Parts: sequence; C-alpha cells; structure tokens
Amino acid sequence: MEMVDVAAQLASYRQTIDNLDAALVYILAERFRCTNEIGLLKAEHGLPSADKSRENHQFTRLRKLAENTMLEQDFLENLMKFIIGEVIQRHNQIASEYLAKQSSAR
Amino acid sequence: MEMVDVAAQLASYRQTIDNLDAALVYILAERFRCTNEIGLLKAEHGLPSADKSRENHQFTRLRKLAENTMLEQDFLENLMKFIIGEVIQRHNQIASEYLAKQSSAR
Repeated sequence: MEMVDVAAQLASYRQTIDNLDAALVYILAERFRCTNEIGLLKAEHGLPSADKSRENHQFTRLRKLAENTMLEQDFLENLMKFIIGEVIQRHNQIASEYLAKQSSAR
Repeated sequence: MEMVDVAAQLASYRQTIDNLDAALVYILAERFRCTNEIGLLKAEHGLPSADKSRENHQFTRLRKLAENTMLEQDFLENLMKFIIGEVIQRHNQIASEYLAKQSSAR
C-alpha cells in the first residue's frame, strides 16, 4: 500500500471514530439526564446516593455484554466504575442542593 | 409520591440506564474494532502508536460536544483519556505481535 493510500485509509478510519465518539457523547449525556432524575428522586425521598445491589446487577450485566463483544472485561468494568463514580458525586451534589433549598424554604 | 411509586419510578429509570449502557458497550466495541484496524495499519507501515496532533483534534472536538450537552468537560476529557490509553496499549500490542510474526517468517 502506498503512503498516500495509508493516509487515506487512516483518515477514513478516523472519520468512523469521530462519528462513534459523537454517538458515545450523546448517549452519555442522555444517561446523565436520567441519573440526575434518579438523584432528585432519591434526594426527595431521603434514599442513599449509592446502591450496592444495583451496582452488582450492573456489573453482572456488563460481564455478559463484554462476553458478547471483543471488549476486555477489566477495561469495561473500570470504565463503568469511572462513570458510576461521577454519577454518585452528582447524586450527592443534588441531595445537598435539595436539602439547602428545603431548609431555606422553612 | 408513595414509596411503591418511588420504587416503580426508580425501576423505570434503571431500565433506561441499562438500555443506554448496552448501546454504549456496543458502540465502544465497534470503536475498538476500528482502532484495532488502525493499529494493524500503523504496525504494517511502522507508524507510531500515539499521534499527538490527532489527539489534539479529538479533544478540541470533545470540548465542542461537551458544550452541546450537559456533560462536564473535565469528566468527558478524563473518560476519553482512559479510552485512548487503552487504544494505545492495544496498538503497541498489535505492533509487537506483527513484528514477532514478521521475524519468525524470515
């Protein structure tokens, strides 16, 4: 393959990556819209931010999904831990804001 | 809202999260299929695994995508660094395997 063909092939692959990354970002944005709603629901009902049994369910499910794809299980679990960590942080923030609003309304 | 309604609402949100996570996993799997092809192309032509100018392009693009969504820019950049780190690791592995195959074929 000539170097000019290599560059064209690389550019084509990178266009695919850019499209997939946009899809990832918009799906993640929708995921956080949903987890923010959960955060508010939990704050309103005094439920804890983290839920170990739910997390266990998610990781069992992820392991099955990893088996169906060519993804490394460890990589996928670490990626999900990173996302869930951000979710819990936001839940705590939503709960603090909710409590502050409640106490100022009294 | 009654506790039974809260549980039903939470279950509904979680079904959405599970569906979005499956979408994320399959898009990621396709992304790695594509970056593995890039890894092979780079190995065949002796190109380096990492490419700073390409990464700069990706992060500039991510910042624009973050502005269009409700995602935190720092969170998104750290997530992408995590994914790109895995990609570069795989590129190095593909290059090692390619070179080992070449030298055993001589």
